[in-house]
Amino acid sequence: MGAETEQEKRLRQLSAKLGYTFKDPSFLVRALTHRSMGAKNNERLEFLGDSLVNFMIADALFHQFGGISEGDLSRVRAHLVKGETLAKIGREYDLSDYLMLGPGELKSGGYRRSSIIADAVEAIIAAVYEDGGLDACRDFVTRIYQGRMSDLDPDKVGKDPKTRLQEILQARQADLPEYSVISVNGPAHAQEFTISCFVGTMDRKFEAVATSRRKAEQLAAEEALQVLEKGNDDDG
Amino acid sequence: MGAETEQEKRLRQLSAKLGYTFKDPSFLVRALTHRSMGAKNNERLEFLGDSLVNFMIADALFHQFGGISEGDLSRVRAHLVKGETLAKIGREYDLSDYLMLGPGELKSGGYRRSSIIADAVEAIIAAVYEDGGLDACRDFVTRIYQGRMSDLDPDKVGKDPKTRLQEILQARQADLPEYSVISVNGPAHAQEFTISCFVGTMDRKFEAVATSRRKAEQLAAEEALQVLEKGNDDDG
Repeated sequence: MGAETEQEKRLRQLSAKLGYTFKDPSFLVRALTHRSMGAKNNERLEFLGDSLVNFMIADALFHQFGGISEGDLSRVRAHLVKGETLAKIGREYDLSDYLMLGPGELKSGGYRRSSIIADAVEAIIAAVYEDGGLDACRDFVTRIYQGRMSDLDPDKVGKDPKTRLQEILQARQADLPEYSVISVNGPAHAQEFTISCFVGTMDRKFEAVATSRRKAEQLAAEEALQVLEKGNDDDG
Repeated sequence: MGAETEQEKRLRQLSAKLGYTFKDPSFLVRALTHRSMGAKNNERLEFLGDSLVNFMIADALFHQFGGISEGDLSRVRAHLVKGETLAKIGREYDLSDYLMLGPGELKSGGYRRSSIIADAVEAIIAAVYEDGGLDACRDFVTRIYQGRMSDLDPDKVGKDPKTRLQEILQARQADLPEYSVISVNGPAHAQEFTISCFVGTMDRKFEAVATSRRKAEQLAAEEALQVLEKGNDDDG
């Protein structure tokens, strides 16, 4: 047998991390190849992988949560398959170390860009499907999503903090939170909003700063939630 | 054996049309049950079916059209799985005759509404999957899409007429079409736009009337396309 090339070695390493050995490693190569490398890139695989992960997560949620509504299923699925989540998964496997990008993308740090990593994760999912069939692909998706699926709370996932805070307070029949603008600083193109979120039942204010009023409100609500969910309602 | 009930008879008829016999007909009943009938409705199945048809059509297009780009795959898939197409499929099987709707929806003619029929088609796809597994579901989706998939032109499907007309003229290195407003009639809330589309290479004008400028332009472009595609370029 000939000596292993550097690329073969790297692909073997990545396969081991991913827990799937390709019969035809060219599928994995293609899945890692960004369009900046030319016409033979991962875009078609990404198209197929997107539909695979959407279906497999929908299928898993449908059976795992027999009691929740279509709306909740959609929200949880959207959270699990969005680019940000896929990019996090890709980073767990150090995917950016294995991407093949053209010189322009490399210089601009494209290998760190979340969208490129997320697309590659989808392309790898399709590559496993093409190489090993649906069952192999389902095993693979189940494995890369294991942590996220096992301790999933469908009441929380994908809901923004303001919504969650409001729902918790409503469930306790408490007053709704009151948001107010404390200050707006900086020039027009770079304003900073300081917002407070007053939670009556805790008799406590939570403050946050962000580049928009909406973002600051969400951050302040998140602060309140963290205290509420620890059960420290009365340490204000 | 007891006599067949009316509902059993109807379900058997529909199964025969659909070409799939349910081991457990309650899946089919559920798929046909609109939310106006109460909590036991087809919404969760619709969620699962949506992801199934998206995946199966993506998979079929990926393999049927090895040479087309991700963008073209996405456009064609979007056309095939959109509500309008699903509703047409549902009507081919007279699905509205079998839907179970609450009295409110029945009175308002809900059984004829495209969105309700489209949702039921997705729910039936999921019902076949739950009852018979993925291969049975794939056979089913392949069958109900047969006509649409077999004579599919990925260069045309899902593209609006203005885009197609422009692309054809560009390919022939001919001048682009010129659109102009001939007249605008009627009161502000009910205007009618008459538009002409002049195609220089045909030395011919195509006119159309619609409730918006954009719609009238598309109709005029469609007129031009029909003549162009018949090869009657010089009958002006």
